[in-house]
Amino acid sequence: METLKFKEFSSLVNISFWHELSKKKLDVLKLSDKPVDINAYYTFSTSQQLDPFLCLEFNSFQPLKNSNNTNEEYYQLPIRSYLSPGTLYNYNTSEDFKQSPKAKIFEDTSKQIYNDITTGKVDKDPSLLTRFILLTYADIKNHQFYYLFGFPALLPSTPMQQSGKVQGLSEYLNTDQLKSLASQLPLSQFFLLKKQGDGVQVHTIDQWTTVNGDKPSEEEDNLPIVGFCDPCCLPENPSWPLRNFLVYLSVRYQVKKVKVICFRGMGLLSSAQSTETSSIVFTAVLPEQQKSDEWSGKSVGWEKDTNGKIAPRYVSIASTMDPLKLASQSVDLNLKLMRWRILPSLNLEKVQDTKCLLLGSGTLGCNVARCLMSWGVRNLTFVDSGKVSYSNPVRQTLFTFDDCTPKQKEKATAAADAIKKIFPAMNAKGEVMSIPMAGHAVAQQDLENVKSQFEKLDKLVQEHDVIYLLTDSRESRWLPTLLARYYGKLLINAALGFDSYLVIRHGVKGTESDGGCDLGCYFCNDVIAPSDTMKDRTLDQQCTVTRPGLSMMASAAAVELMVSVLHHPQGGRAPGETQNELNSEISTPLGIVPHQLRGFLSYYQTLPLFANPYKNCTACSQPVINEFKEHGWEFVLRVLNDSSCLTKITGIDDIQNENVNIDWEIEGQSNSDDGDDF
Amino acid sequence: METLKFKEFSSLVNISFWHELSKKKLDVLKLSDKPVDINAYYTFSTSQQLDPFLCLEFNSFQPLKNSNNTNEEYYQLPIRSYLSPGTLYNYNTSEDFKQSPKAKIFEDTSKQIYNDITTGKVDKDPSLLTRFILLTYADIKNHQFYYLFGFPALLPSTPMQQSGKVQGLSEYLNTDQLKSLASQLPLSQFFLLKKQGDGVQVHTIDQWTTVNGDKPSEEEDNLPIVGFCDPCCLPENPSWPLRNFLVYLSVRYQVKKVKVICFRGMGLLSSAQSTETSSIVFTAVLPEQQKSDEWSGKSVGWEKDTNGKIAPRYVSIASTMDPLKLASQSVDLNLKLMRWRILPSLNLEKVQDTKCLLLGSGTLGCNVARCLMSWGVRNLTFVDSGKVSYSNPVRQTLFTFDDCTPKQKEKATAAADAIKKIFPAMNAKGEVMSIPMAGHAVAQQDLENVKSQFEKLDKLVQEHDVIYLLTDSRESRWLPTLLARYYGKLLINAALGFDSYLVIRHGVKGTESDGGCDLGCYFCNDVIAPSDTMKDRTLDQQCTVTRPGLSMMASAAAVELMVSVLHHPQGGRAPGETQNELNSEISTPLGIVPHQLRGFLSYYQTLPLFANPYKNCTACSQPVINEFKEHGWEFVLRVLNDSSCLTKITGIDDIQNENVNIDWEIEGQSNSDDGDDF
Repeated sequence: METLKFKEFSSLVNISFWHELSKKKLDVLKLSDKPVDINAYYTFSTSQQLDPFLCLEFNSFQPLKNSNNTNEEYYQLPIRSYLSPGTLYNYNTSEDFKQSPKAKIFEDTSKQIYNDITTGKVDKDPSLLTRFILLTYADIKNHQFYYLFGFPALLPSTPMQQSGKVQGLSEYLNTDQLKSLASQLPLSQFFLLKKQGDGVQVHTIDQWTTVNGDKPSEEEDNLPIVGFCDPCCLPENPSWPLRNFLVYLSVRYQVKKVKVICFRGMGLLSSAQSTETSSIVFTAVLPEQQKSDEWSGKSVGWEKDTNGKIAPRYVSIASTMDPLKLASQSVDLNLKLMRWRILPSLNLEKVQDTKCLLLGSGTLGCNVARCLMSWGVRNLTFVDSGKVSYSNPVRQTLFTFDDCTPKQKEKATAAADAIKKIFPAMNAKGEVMSIPMAGHAVAQQDLENVKSQFEKLDKLVQEHDVIYLLTDSRESRWLPTLLARYYGKLLINAALGFDSYLVIRHGVKGTESDGGCDLGCYFCNDVIAPSDTMKDRTLDQQCTVTRPGLSMMASAAAVELMVSVLHHPQGGRAPGETQNELNSEISTPLGIVPHQLRGFLSYYQTLPLFANPYKNCTACSQPVINEFKEHGWEFVLRVLNDSSCLTKITGIDDIQNENVNIDWEIEGQSNSDDGDDF
Repeated sequence: METLKFKEFSSLVNISFWHELSKKKLDVLKLSDKPVDINAYYTFSTSQQLDPFLCLEFNSFQPLKNSNNTNEEYYQLPIRSYLSPGTLYNYNTSEDFKQSPKAKIFEDTSKQIYNDITTGKVDKDPSLLTRFILLTYADIKNHQFYYLFGFPALLPSTPMQQSGKVQGLSEYLNTDQLKSLASQLPLSQFFLLKKQGDGVQVHTIDQWTTVNGDKPSEEEDNLPIVGFCDPCCLPENPSWPLRNFLVYLSVRYQVKKVKVICFRGMGLLSSAQSTETSSIVFTAVLPEQQKSDEWSGKSVGWEKDTNGKIAPRYVSIASTMDPLKLASQSVDLNLKLMRWRILPSLNLEKVQDTKCLLLGSGTLGCNVARCLMSWGVRNLTFVDSGKVSYSNPVRQTLFTFDDCTPKQKEKATAAADAIKKIFPAMNAKGEVMSIPMAGHAVAQQDLENVKSQFEKLDKLVQEHDVIYLLTDSRESRWLPTLLARYYGKLLINAALGFDSYLVIRHGVKGTESDGGCDLGCYFCNDVIAPSDTMKDRTLDQQCTVTRPGLSMMASAAAVELMVSVLHHPQGGRAPGETQNELNSEISTPLGIVPHQLRGFLSYYQTLPLFANPYKNCTACSQPVINEFKEHGWEFVLRVLNDSSCLTKITGIDDIQNENVNIDWEIEGQSNSDDGDDF
């Protein structure tokens, strides 16, 4: 008689499992550290050098098949593999992980296994005997994982013994019996076997009494025979799953002595290798087991680290990851974290899917693009006709010295390139083109060129969801304003003064039933048509003369405003809220959705303001839209050549001399409130 | 008799002149288009192929020597050169340039020349006869210049004639006379000459009557002789300066016929070339000139372009410039423009000379650095112990994908490198180091390392003027707060919440007589010592969970606040102003100088707040400063190991349980209001 020794499990965690855990943590678990059901499998070993592995992969989080699962949405075992159900305890901090009630968890799991045995659950589902525990701390930020596996094995009061010699399966069964066994493959995880003449019969374990009767023989030659699929290949020892199976036999059927087949499967399955070489058979002698309501004995089975100590293992998967995917995952992580505690209703997917068109790639264009990228927006198109000049990089945050020497690069493409250098997963494009400007007459030889610019812009507006108007002159804002209005796109307009800024979302045209609200555009408070203001500008009017911090403030406000609008149930039709809404119910999880923001740096003041659309507006009013609808390019060309035709079309001719209340015009800045594109 | 023909001047403008004009325009002229006195020179020509050049260089803007000039601050003529005084009309726009009253200017200048003749000014200063005009439009932004020269020559009613043949000077004077002339070199621009036996005598032009009497001879052999230093080399023709000289002779002395020496200098000056070869002599016959109070005749002399048309010339100096200098100049330009119209009192030099220490190189550090660079700050030092991770570049605006793969770069040095890539003239450094943190106990083996970190930080604080505190934990803010207070440095602290931010300038310790105001620090409203909050943080607490736009807003506010403080007469001792100051007198040209800014993104609100220093503050109060003064590192180490000692030192032990009004704590964010350093 010898004490039975079992080869313990080794965990084999595929990298895909850690990736999946990261995803689960971010999207589902978040801050929860409640136990999570997971599944693992083990299979036969092909070499004595290979440990019995418990394997986890990306699909370990999938539930077991049940009537609720549809196709492939359940945990699927690989061929010739056996299920091991487990419980994941994922902690939020390394400290929590260290402090986790390991002993208690292990004890509870042991009790559960015992309970499953006594209540008969194991009869129907023998895999419950292989229940395991996984404690983890996922340092997702750094793509590092700390983990500890437990494979609880219930310890009888005295050790289980092995009696006599270990035989090979082919010694124990004759050729016919082996053939008979082979015909009944695949075998269950745990099974019963009965020799019947030249054959054998395999039974499920719940058939014990049927197969072996109430009082099975304890004679060596007539012992009841059990078997299990053994994931190890050692010549003398069985592996871990047998432990709880023997306890099961002892507890459930008071078995004292039993023939055990450690079935190692492989040889039987290949016709070329018809002799079973690794499966072994021996006689196990089990101590008498006091039956009780609850497991009160000991259990063992924490996995040891490489030094043989029970201690967490560590894995870093960063080096195995595609840098680009790593970057994408990390970027998403940062955003998704917002949903954890603070803003569960944050719709990051909606933000991410928003295609943004940036008209102007100067200080505003660069900062707006950066801020959009931080919010997860992946599709950006830059439009600019200028080149990067020496003074740009210190203010225009996507450019460097190399962009202006030895050759000046085009701003639009340089900006798109920079975005991709920051985050290669971005879909950023640059369109080098001018925006046709109201009142800038088109010479005959330029006609085709300007027309194609118009057509290009018209197409770009249609292709994008949000238009950012970040140019440096009033007249360049006219056509984009009209097009965005015409195609019902959200347009966000930003303009800088010396120490003040304006951010305004133009009204989106709605249907009569959408219940939303219409808002004024940049031109709605003007009673003059946009005309050529660039013809005779002094140096300071040509260049950005603005306090450097202003562009960051305005750009950030413009992007945050867009994100808020995207979260409003009425989107671009959301009413223009002001700080008066401070005490009423907030319309979006991100706060109020103003119509206009006026920032005044000298007093560090920001005012959310509101203005109604102007029925005679030269850019967004119905007469202008109608004219465009009817005449298209021909109408646009007319305005380019002589913007004063707009005053006739809209009827503001009649009221030009009236005194109107230009309530949001920055004092003394009427001509240079835009103009950051030095 | 032949009509006298004169070789006109060609302008030869050295690139250094255009550079100087750019500088003058930016720093002095700004938007002024008033005429500016400038000076040019001409010298002898060495070849018939070389035009007579009027030369302008960088020093053309210097005034002529007078009693007010000190050493070298006046216009210095090169050797053997002659002065030509001019007037620069520099226009602000190309349109103004085109529309300039060219004819009027030319006429006025002609009248002035005539007036200088009749009033006798020319007698004393013959260079006034060579007065010139320069009209320019300096497109400094693009380093391009448009210009038009005028060299007004008064036209007599009928053309001046030449009688007889043109002689060489060595034909006209014998060897002895030539030698005599040579001994009287250098000659004035315009001069009189008298043959006297074997010699000649040179006189200044105001000696006319003395030399030639009231009624000079009109006989060919006895004509009065005049001369001028002739910048051309043509065998038959004099150059432009002679024109007004002859008019002068005619108007001032009613000269009708005169022998003219076109002195071309060179041969006489070199002993090796003792024969004068290029100077010529001829007889000029002048029409009678009606004397009047004012010039009413015509004048000619606009410079033609290369096509022979009177049209502006164009020069681009960009290609001749060192790209780095070009960049520096362009960057300065953008800032200096602010002074033109809007803020003449802006002290850009003070801003530029401010050395800034950035503690933390995360989203705040990157954006603050960018904003400082835009303001012209040239000295930046980054401090951070972290490396660039994949999620950083989309929010931390100085990093790219390449900074995190294949190897993660150190944030501090990567940030400094990025700054230099943007603008190579920056003096940016990175210090890879941790900031010793209150309550983070120091293990024995780390002692030396932490001590050297302390010493390094201590040194850095001393070496810089403004300290930006942009770290991501409360306890890392303690030591910098103490050090800045101890060394009397301005410290600006910024911290981000999810949708709110705090920017606060810590009070600077003053003398009793400085009249300034002391202000609270980040810790002044706390009644607990900073302790280890980082030990057990969940993922969202470790990472920046903040709306992406917030960092730009807070960073911009932090930098603008510093610039305002630098403009306040009391600097860091400026009282903390709030929006109540809206209607009172503004203390700086940039607006109010608040103590704290609290930004709330959900309502787009910014509140300038104020808080007094707290006499028991754990970071900036006198007991803490005293303890540091006395025990230095030993005291710091004590706090690192156990920050609770601070409560004893400051005496807040006694009041910890009192209810204090934490009026500027962000609701629900007490632990994560900082933490942007994911």
